[in-house]
Formats: sequence, structure tokens, C-alpha cells
Amino acid sequence: MVVVFEQRADEEEINRIVEKIKNMGYSVLKSEGEGQRIIGIGGVKPESDIKEISMIEGVARVLSISEPYVFAGRDFKPENTIINVGNASIGSKEVTIIAGPCAVENELQIHTVAQYVAKAGAKILRGGAYKPRTSPYSFQGLGEDGLKFIRDAADSNGLKVVTEIIDLTLIDMMGKYTDIFQVGARNMYNYPLLKELGKLNIPVLLKRGLSATIDELLMSSEYILAGGNNKVILCERGIRTFEPSTRNTFDVSAIPVIQQKSHLPVIADPSHATGFRDMVIPVARAAVAAGADGLIIEVHNDPNKALSDGPQALLPDQFEKLISRSD
Amino acid sequence: MVVVFEQRADEEEINRIVEKIKNMGYSVLKSEGEGQRIIGIGGVKPESDIKEISMIEGVARVLSISEPYVFAGRDFKPENTIINVGNASIGSKEVTIIAGPCAVENELQIHTVAQYVAKAGAKILRGGAYKPRTSPYSFQGLGEDGLKFIRDAADSNGLKVVTEIIDLTLIDMMGKYTDIFQVGARNMYNYPLLKELGKLNIPVLLKRGLSATIDELLMSSEYILAGGNNKVILCERGIRTFEPSTRNTFDVSAIPVIQQKSHLPVIADPSHATGFRDMVIPVARAAVAAGADGLIIEVHNDPNKALSDGPQALLPDQFEKLISRSD
Amino acid sequence: MVVVFEQRADEEEINRIVEKIKNMGYSVLKSEGEGQRIIGIGGVKPESDIKEISMIEGVARVLSISEPYVFAGRDFKPENTIINVGNASIGSKEVTIIAGPCAVENELQIHTVAQYVAKAGAKILRGGAYKPRTSPYSFQGLGEDGLKFIRDAADSNGLKVVTEIIDLTLIDMMGKYTDIFQVGARNMYNYPLLKELGKLNIPVLLKRGLSATIDELLMSSEYILAGGNNKVILCERGIRTFEPSTRNTFDVSAIPVIQQKSHLPVIADPSHATGFRDMVIPVARAAVAAGADGLIIEVHNDPNKALSDGPQALLPDQFEKLISRSD
Amino acid sequence: MVVVFEQRADEEEINRIVEKIKNMGYSVLKSEGEGQRIIGIGGVKPESDIKEISMIEGVARVLSISEPYVFAGRDFKPENTIINVGNASIGSKEVTIIAGPCAVENELQIHTVAQYVAKAGAKILRGGAYKPRTSPYSFQGLGEDGLKFIRDAADSNGLKVVTEIIDLTLIDMMGKYTDIFQVGARNMYNYPLLKELGKLNIPVLLKRGLSATIDELLMSSEYILAGGNNKVILCERGIRTFEPSTRNTFDVSAIPVIQQKSHLPVIADPSHATGFRDMVIPVARAAVAAGADGLIIEVHNDPNKALSDGPQALLPDQFEKLISRSD
Repeated sequence: MVVVFEQRADEEEINRIVEKIKNMGYSVLKSEGEGQRIIGIGGVKPESDIKEISMIEGVARVLSISEPYVFAGRDFKPENTIINVGNASIGSKEVTIIAGPCAVENELQIHTVAQYVAKAGAKILRGGAYKPRTSPYSFQGLGEDGLKFIRDAADSNGLKVVTEIIDLTLIDMMGKYTDIFQVGARNMYNYPLLKELGKLNIPVLLKRGLSATIDELLMSSEYILAGGNNKVILCERGIRTFEPSTRNTFDVSAIPVIQQKSHLPVIADPSHATGFRDMVIPVARAAVAAGADGLIIEVHNDPNKALSDGPQALLPDQFEKLISRSD
Repeated sequence: MVVVFEQRADEEEINRIVEKIKNMGYSVLKSEGEGQRIIGIGGVKPESDIKEISMIEGVARVLSISEPYVFAGRDFKPENTIINVGNASIGSKEVTIIAGPCAVENELQIHTVAQYVAKAGAKILRGGAYKPRTSPYSFQGLGEDGLKFIRDAADSNGLKVVTEIIDLTLIDMMGKYTDIFQVGARNMYNYPLLKELGKLNIPVLLKRGLSATIDELLMSSEYILAGGNNKVILCERGIRTFEPSTRNTFDVSAIPVIQQKSHLPVIADPSHATGFRDMVIPVARAAVAAGADGLIIEVHNDPNKALSDGPQALLPDQFEKLISRSD
Repeated sequence: MVVVFEQRADEEEINRIVEKIKNMGYSVLKSEGEGQRIIGIGGVKPESDIKEISMIEGVARVLSISEPYVFAGRDFKPENTIINVGNASIGSKEVTIIAGPCAVENELQIHTVAQYVAKAGAKILRGGAYKPRTSPYSFQGLGEDGLKFIRDAADSNGLKVVTEIIDLTLIDMMGKYTDIFQVGARNMYNYPLLKELGKLNIPVLLKRGLSATIDELLMSSEYILAGGNNKVILCERGIRTFEPSTRNTFDVSAIPVIQQKSHLPVIADPSHATGFRDMVIPVARAAVAAGADGLIIEVHNDPNKALSDGPQALLPDQFEKLISRSD
Repeated sequence: MVVVFEQRADEEEINRIVEKIKNMGYSVLKSEGEGQRIIGIGGVKPESDIKEISMIEGVARVLSISEPYVFAGRDFKPENTIINVGNASIGSKEVTIIAGPCAVENELQIHTVAQYVAKAGAKILRGGAYKPRTSPYSFQGLGEDGLKFIRDAADSNGLKVVTEIIDLTLIDMMGKYTDIFQVGARNMYNYPLLKELGKLNIPVLLKRGLSATIDELLMSSEYILAGGNNKVILCERGIRTFEPSTRNTFDVSAIPVIQQKSHLPVIADPSHATGFRDMVIPVARAAVAAGADGLIIEVHNDPNKALSDGPQALLPDQFEKLISRSD
């Protein structure tokens, strides 16, 4: 960290502050020269808050000079992480396609969609059995029945499964059915859940929170990585802004920014980002053009009857059209 | 709901759409007159998505005309809800003061702060034993020991306890120590937790999420209320915006907006909203002037040594000064 | 517009409201049936505010059912507008490349860059002679000298010129040098300037404001179009959000949204959107993949010495690499 | 500024970078000690961009340690600036009340409102004669006639006048009628206008832009101050966020933040901030409680007939009620 003194601070005051900071346990790198107003601080403890020091009388500001994450950073691991799930290789040269309905609604539906998406080139089947819904009166998912249905549908079509976990008490049970745990945007800050997932050896698809910064997303991944599970796939799914014409604003530059900061693969969810079927295809193409390692797309055989998020689901032929160009 | 047809839709197409909507199970209120382009829809099912109908060919847009919540709304209960905790009466004419450190750090600290805040007029003691921290390397709280310390400190000073719950598996244990469960901003969308809290008869202090709309906050309270627990206290604690000079942007107008929409009490957290001690007092006063039913304030006997959020904690004498004017 | 009555409003009150609205000059389309709570309103005057009616006692809310723009909308003109400037055809199948330095700094610089970008395939040269800078102490541009230099540089290399206008008193003078007037993000709401530009027959490149909605951008274009100048090129250049790792957040879905709502061509400015050279290429590719009609890119022969925005300017060889793939 | 080197940079590379920075004209304050990764830079030129240096190979980041403004800062002038207009003393202990309709609509209206607000305690009359409206089809103001009406109405009631200027060509003419020039949110970045106003000796009421940071607001004031006009009144009027229940989000903490950073007076505009009459009074009270030096409030004798922004205007008796408590 760098500490900047107030302009009015004289040598005596500066010496007093430096002593105070040393007493807090830091090493201090003092500079020579006239008019010196800054010092560097070493041995910064992970739990220290940049503002603690900024509150010392005579300190104008404190600046952080290093990233807060360790395992998630490119400094720690320069080469890309590749996560293999079935015959998908997420983070490699290929664009991995994950597709399926928003929610598993019944056995027929998930089998029908699985068949479609497998045929079109998807390698992983998505579908929620536990749905975090804004309203307690909305469809909340089929629970374990839904998991059985999606497992069967995936197996019958040579696909792997990703499904959302919204509660850490479900980890063991869900682990019997899924190949990847999805942590949704609403749970990106659910640290108890992330810690538990960090103890597993199962890949985690971690979605960016609605208004999470990229650094916060990386810090959430750090909870999983620090636990020993190094199979984390990040996902940009749109952030909340003032613009009302799409459900969220897809932050396309998050893809190259994440790839610069981290070795973890990053995929895009254009369905939740835009909320409208018509926007899914252009945004999916944009994500791939920007370097995304994969796409997670909602596909439904009959979106008008979908129990959740129907309007943003692609029809099977739209999906095929998309894949045939971006894969 | 109101359905608006596209300008190019002729009578035949409109009739076809109306049939379709009727088949979806709605009652349709058709208007008379030439150039008619709208219909009203009754019997709207709670789980239906406004966009389902908007995707029908020929429909230009669908507009919702009612609020999505039931129990949280003023329509359901016109008079203010008052929640009594000890000798605090939250939602009544008085401004309830909740105060204490960000985190319980040790027995001495919480007793010292409890004594200060009780003397100054606070009725409820705050202090976290489980801290949701962005970094896995930051202080995560003392756990059950912290709960014991805060319970003792409160009891010794005639105070009640509010403390944050971050994981539903802790409800039973924490229930032995706390008088109010706090759901933090990061867990406002943690529906499994909210559902469990809805089964209790213990008050819940529900903080607005970082980028949650007021309607989403009310919908999260609806999860608790729908479960049968009608003791929900809402809390405005700042939202995330582009402005960097405060940690968050305190949305002062949320207070009167919530009071217009809902009967639930609403308090303000100027400490987390601003992140800087100097801003806590003016923002606290603003909240009370805008009609807040209470304040939750961080106070620390030695903020420079606080293990979390020290810089935003008031010093005891600052706290006294604040209370003496706003209570 | 649609007017929704409050649930408690009885027939008498509704009739009273309907009379009031009729007296305001609207035609009212009343619906039949029991439990009727809505009416449609025709003959809505352009200057009326949706909220005027919403303030009538007994009215719960008023909903707008039509877009506020006329000439900018696809309803008015279903086919794409194509704007020809030199041998560029903006809005056609081709991706038009506009490139050049942020600011014209001297004769040599603009000639050097012009030569580079012309050779690489750009058709229009950009470069500011009047720079709107946050600080009054920053370089404000060369003024008319800069315009002379860019005109010469463009002519010598078979390019056309686009340059920013920040003040309506400069229109006549600048019109002697430029082929396209650029209205920057900071002037998107500068209606007196837009009105004056609406009287010309010169194309206008209108950038989206920092926090303007897409509908506001289209309304600003409406100021130009309503004046009779139908040569408007829209530009997505990033919006302001909470994310600090890029200068702005490039709203890639704005491209297909605009193309759905409007017939006007839309180009992308990845340089200002991201603020960092490393992000310009992936975001430029994303914009083209999403359907952008063109790109406006900052290129500088020596970005480290650029007087403004150097770090976001591509080096000539980076620019060539980009063009060779996206054109 | 502080320059941080990349971890992998060895002594030779650091020396090379230091030379480069010295060649750019800066003085370099180098620190002693092992593991040294930072240097301080002096003599930073106002027009230099923090990112120029950050692009040097081997530099990890560059941090600014000083505020970008000079004349607007408390460092330059520690005591509060007080601006006297008639018998109003803006920036002193009193809360100055500015009130009137959004737009001057006719002679009778402005005289009626002026009488009301003068009686209730306002000292300055507001009212627009040139209205920046999102739609070209909305009422654009009465122009010079409106200025004559408001001047007369103010003079007849012992009030001073503030009115909005949207175009620098109008300065001379408007100067004949107004006592304070208002620069609206949409023109906060209109630097040519600000420069011209900086040449006058007439107070300027400068509103914060829709998504302007507080530092940008201060930088815009710097354009006026640097020109020699030191009579700038800042105004918080709400910022654009994701929250839809108010027109904008009133940033109440901006008031103490501005007062900490700057000596200029700051007033609040709760009418534009909220957009709804019911929210104006609580937000006005909050602003005063937070320390605002004044309020600018829309009042209309018949808001339902107002040609612009009627729903946010207080009725005369509401206004009286507000003033009687906050003055």
C-alpha cells in the first residue's frame, strides 16, 4: 500500500504517523528527498482494511497497489485453466456450448430439449430444479424430481449436466445428479455456500452478481479456490444499469478484462443478460467474438409455455442457426 | 394486466390473440369503439410472466397494473406495523436506535461498546459473529463465542440483540442468542434463508441488496411474510452507483417510497451507506428527517483497531452527539 | 395511453375522472364489463406528460403505449437508412471504418495517421479540433488550425472527415472543413445544437450520452430529423456503470436494440467505451459480431505522446490487424 | 502521482522507466530499501493523463494523489464562500429558499406563483423560459417573453430571479433579466457555455449532471472559477440509477461530501430528484438535515395544468408547510 500525507503535515507529524503504522505491524519503505509526501507499506495483512490507515490524522489517502486475490490471478498461474467435463474442454480453443431450458418442467420437456441441443452441438445440458424467484408465488422448481429428469435426459443424449444450487444443505444430494454446480448471480456473495463448494472436486460455474464488480467476482472465486477446488468457470450474465430496454446490460468487455486478470475460463449467458430472444443471438456472437470460452443458452421447445423465462429462450431452430456459426 | 396490440393488427388478428389469451386461462375485458388497440386481462396467475403474453405475434406490449406483493403492501394492511422488541417500539413515533460494532471482536470490546450505547440511548445492540467478507482472507467473525459475548453484553446493559445470519443451518443455534435476525444486503436474494425465517416468530431486519429495487426488497420481505412471520423491519443501507466518493449511495427517498408502498417499518444504516465516519452523522440526520423509523449505527470504542469496517464506526462521543439530536 | 383506476374508486369517481380527462382534450375509450379498472386514451398531445393524469385523485397509474419518437422509428421507415459519405456507405452491408487520433495535434501527426489508416482500409478520418475536456487545464484542441490540418490530411489520402462540434456558433466555420459533424456524448442533450444541425444537409454522427437510455438517444436524433436532416448516424460508446475496470461499460446489446427500434445506422466506439488499448480489439470485434454498421477507432502513431486519450489509441499495426479481420 | 512497478520488473527495467518518466518532464522521488516497487512523481502537468504513464512497459499502475481542481477546493480557500443575491445570503447559516414553477407559462401564472412563494419566505424566484426537453415536440419555453414575465413577477414581490440558460448565444440578452444563471444537469459538461459564464460577474447555479461524479461537478465549476467568476452555487438534483420508483436517486451524502471537498455553497433540488410531489417534502427535509445551504423547489398554483413537470410541483399550501419547518 501507499500512504499519502496531507500537505500541511510537517516532518514531526509524519514521523509520528510512520511510528503508528509500524506499531500496526507494517514495514515502512520511506522515501528520500525534499517535499516527500508518500511512503510505501509492506507486510500488509490480508484482513486489514485500506481505510484503517486512512483515518489516521495527517494521512490524506491510502492507495492499494496489489490485487486482493491470490489463486484466481494470472500472477499465480499464467497459463489458462482448462476444465474438462465429459468431452467438453472449457478454457481451451473450442467454444463450449451449454444449453437447455431455464427450468426443468417435466420429463418430456427436458428429454425433448436435450435431444435438440445435443444434436445441434451442445455438450452440457442446463436446467434448474431449484429456482431462485423474485416472487414467492412463482414456480420454484421440481426439486429432486427435476434433477432425476435432467440426469436421465443428459445421459440419454451424451451430455453432461449443470444445474443451480441455491442452498448448501443440498450439496450432497445434488452431487449425485450433477456434473457442474451452478452458483447463480443472486448467490455470488453467498460465502458459506462457496466455502462448501471449495471442499469438493466438482466444477463450479460461478455467475457474476447483478452489480458485482469483476474484482468481486474474482474474490468470490477465491473462496472456492482457497478451499482447494480449482475447477471454477466464471460467467458474465449482464449487470444492472439504468437502461430499461434489456433485462440487464451485457458487459462484453468483462470477458477480455477477466482473461487479462485471471487464468480461469469465462463463459457468457446472453439469455439472462438480455431477457429477449431477439437479442440472444447477436449478443452470443458478440461474446464469442470478444473471446468467451463458451456460451450458456436457454433453449425451449415451446417458450410460450415455459414456466419461467420463456421469452428469452431460443427456439430449437434459432439455436441450431446460432451454433452452426459460433462453434 | 393491459395488452396493447400492434398498430398493423386487424380485427381478425386481434380476435385470434384474444382467444389465445383466454386459452391461457385469463379473463379478457375488451373495450368498445373504433381504433381500439388495448384490452385488460383479469385472473392473472401469480407465476405468470408479463413477457409470456408479450411474445405473442401481434402484441406490441404488455403492461402490469398491480404490485407484485400482497402481504407487504399498504393495500393489504393500511396501518403501520409496529414491532416491539424489549422497550423499543419500531414503527411507532419514536426513532429506534440500534448501535454497536460491525463485528464482535472480544468480550471486553462488546461490553465496552454496549455500555456506551446503552447510556447514550440505544435500545438494541448490533454486532456480527458471522461476517460475510469479500475476501476469504478477512476476519470472518467469532462464531458462537461472539454470540455469547453479545448476548451477555446486551443483557448487562438492558439492551436487545440484533446479529446477522448468513446461513440457514445456523438458525436454531443463533435463535438461542439473538432477539432479531439480520439479513444482510448480500443475502437479500437468499430465498431459502428467507423462507426459513418466515417460519419463526422472531423479528427479521431485512437489508436492501446492493442493487435491489425497492420492489425487490418488498418481494423479499414477502417471502418472510408469506411464511407467517409478520415481524419484518426493512433497512435502507445505500445502493451501488457510479459515484466513488462514498462506499454506496444512500437512497434517502427510498424511505418515503417504502412508507407509501408498505406498512412495514423502515430504518436506515448510514454507516454502511457512506463508509466514512464523517458522513455518518449528516446522513443519519437526513434519514430521520425523511421519516426513518430508526437508525442502525456502527460505534466502536477504538475504530482504528476494529477488525472490520473501523473507519465508518462512530466514536462514542460522536454517537452521543448524534443521538442527543435525533432521538 | 392507458389509465388505471385505484381499486377503491367507485363508478361515480371513475366517471368524474373520465370527465376530467375529456376536458383535458383527450378522447376516451371506455371498456365494458364488471370490475373494469382501465381506460384507453386517444389524441394524446405530444407535450403532455404521462404524470399529469397520474396525479388525478383516484388514478392508480398511467401507462404509455407508444414510442415517443416519430421519424427515428422503424414504424415510420421500415427499411434501413444508408448514408453515403465519399465511398463509404454507412448502414449498408459493409462495416465502415472511421479512424484517427483523438485530437489533431499538429500537421505531421494527422498526416502520418491519415496515411496509416487509409492504407489499412479506413474510409473516414476522425480527429478533434475542439475537445470537451473535464479539466479546464487540459489540452482543448487546435481549433480552426486543427480543422485545416485534418481536411488536408484526409484529402491527401482519399478520406472523408468527421470531427466534433461542441458549440453551435462554430457550425458555419466547421462546415467548410468537415464532411460529418460529430456530436459527442457530453452534448447528446444539447438541444439547441441539435436543432441547428437539423437545418443542414450534412451527416451527423450522434453519440449516446454517458447515461442516456436508448430511447433518449433516439429522441435526440429526433431533434435533428424533425428539422429535416435525415442523415443521422448513431453511436454506442459505452455507458457509465459501477464497474471500474473499464472507462465505461460498452453496451453491446444496444446495437441490436437500436436496429430493432430504428432504421438509422449505428456504429460502435470501442476506444472510448473501454479506455484501454488492450480492450479495443475484442470489443470492436464484439460490436461487429453484434451487427454494428461501423467502427470509430482511435489510432495514433505514438500513443504515449498523445495529448489526449493516448492509452486507448491503437498502434498502427494493431489497427491493421483489427481491420483485416473485421472489414 | 505514485507509480507502481510490476513485480517482475528488475532494477535495470525500473531505472529505464524512471529515465523515461524524467524525460517526460517529471521530478522523481525514489524510495530506498529492498523490494522497492513504488516511486513518487512531482511536477505533474495539469494536462497529463494518469494513463500515459500507466502504459509504459513494466509499470503496473499509476495512482493520483491529488484532487484535479484548484480554485474549487478547500485547500485553496478554507472558509465557506457566501454568495449574496438580494437579501439572500447563500452559503451562510440560513437555508435559502428558491421557488417557482418549472416553466414560465404566462404572465398570470408566474405572478400568482411569485406572490405565493414570496409570502411563504422564498427569496429567489425560479422559472424556465428556455426548456431543454427530451422531446422536440414538448413545450420549449416562452423565450424572451418568459424572461420579461419572470423579471416583473420577481420585482413586484421583492424576489430575485434564477433561470436556466441552454445556449451561450443567449448570455447577453438573458443577462438583462436574470440575477443568477442556472446551468441545468444536461449542460454540466457544456464547457463552452461554462467558459463564457466564467467571464461574467453574475452568480451561476450549476446543477450536477445526471451521472456526473462529484469530482466532475467540481471540475465543471472550475471552468467558471478559472475564468474569474467566483460566484458558483452547486446543486445536487439526483443521479441516474437503476431504481425506477423515483425519477432520479437523490444523493443526499453528496451534500456533506461537497462541503468537505469545496468551499462553494451547495443547494438541493428535491423536485427534479424525485419527480413526485409526495416525495419532495421528505427529501427537502433530508437535504436540510444533511446540511444543504438552500433548496430549489418547484411550486405551481395548478400543477395539473402545468406545461412541464406538473406532478412534481408542490401546491402553495404544501410549500408553506415545508418552509415553515425548514427555514
